[in-house]
Amino acid sequence: MEIVTIETTGRNQMIDITSTVRAYVKRSGIKDGVCFVFVPHTTAAVTINENADPDVVHDILSTLSKLVPYKDNYRHIEGNSDAHVKASLMGNTATVIVSNGDLVLGTWQSLFFCEFDGPRRRRLMIKAVGDN
Amino acid sequence: MEIVTIETTGRNQMIDITSTVRAYVKRSGIKDGVCFVFVPHTTAAVTINENADPDVVHDILSTLSKLVPYKDNYRHIEGNSDAHVKASLMGNTATVIVSNGDLVLGTWQSLFFCEFDGPRRRRLMIKAVGDN
Amino acid sequence: MEIVTIETTGRNQMIDITSTVRAYVKRSGIKDGVCFVFVPHTTAAVTINENADPDVVHDILSTLSKLVPYKDNYRHIEGNSDAHVKASLMGNTATVIVSNGDLVLGTWQSLFFCEFDGPRRRRLMIKAVGDN
Repeated sequence: MEIVTIETTGRNQMIDITSTVRAYVKRSGIKDGVCFVFVPHTTAAVTINENADPDVVHDILSTLSKLVPYKDNYRHIEGNSDAHVKASLMGNTATVIVSNGDLVLGTWQSLFFCEFDGPRRRRLMIKAVGDN
Repeated sequence: MEIVTIETTGRNQMIDITSTVRAYVKRSGIKDGVCFVFVPHTTAAVTINENADPDVVHDILSTLSKLVPYKDNYRHIEGNSDAHVKASLMGNTATVIVSNGDLVLGTWQSLFFCEFDGPRRRRLMIKAVGDN
Repeated sequence: MEIVTIETTGRNQMIDITSTVRAYVKRSGIKDGVCFVFVPHTTAAVTINENADPDVVHDILSTLSKLVPYKDNYRHIEGNSDAHVKASLMGNTATVIVSNGDLVLGTWQSLFFCEFDGPRRRRLMIKAVGDN
């Protein structure tokens, strides 16, 4: 397992971590297996989506904020309940098949770290299992 | 790993892939482990839900379309931002435990490929890991 | 694989299952690997979020019920379509890295069984894979 630190700069932000995860898989020596990306936070998440057009990320984040508004009749006094809800909706794990020592992703797929209560210093855990 | 082709026929559609995944697990020879179903697209997803009553699928798709409308103030000019958002909300991986050489699913559970921007020719990647 | 029974007491409820899953990992003898928590139901789910302040759980459940109302123009005559939608939005699997024979969770992370159509007797399947 490897732990990576990520510095986020906005309250809501999606950061492409594909090259980070890909580099880890190569270092791990796993040729054939599965790679898990785990976010150890409750107001951040990980997802797979398109990075070719940055407007996709914009639309994902703005739709999420429309569905789960920053300010609402929340009870949690820290003021970040929206981020907790978004984290559970998006999920805190990504699972990617590893083949020939590399991530198997579709043409338009990128892995994104999703910040919903930044800016913060965050961590990401990556682990590949399988055969060398 | 096996790659399966799926032809979708509607813009929003859920297609039961349980028998496809089950047949792969039997072919793989894995008796005890975990099976991963991975969708390599950014406007499609995979989920587990009920197929006994087709109205459940109807209600899932119509609720998603109410939450994330087809047309809205999206920036992405391709006109399928709703599909990108739905894909991340539903998730692009399903994980099912394998025991005695078969998927362990609950009585009412089926695996569904979720199309959100069809009709298209899609792919599905299936991989089981574990002991023979 | 181990199967755990959970008795839920409300229609919508999140029950902390961290200690149950942690105890299973210790019993399994897996020191270094991955633990999968699988919910074999179509109106329940599993998620990871904060349990330090119970208001977080309250806000997650109330936001979900606002997004996906109990009563709406659903077709499914059983009257629990909201629960089916919530189950797919939250997801029925949690994946946690195992290191040194224990779950690797962030400081504020707890594993929750999510009931959306209770009260019911539910099951939870837990499986760890990796090296002893």
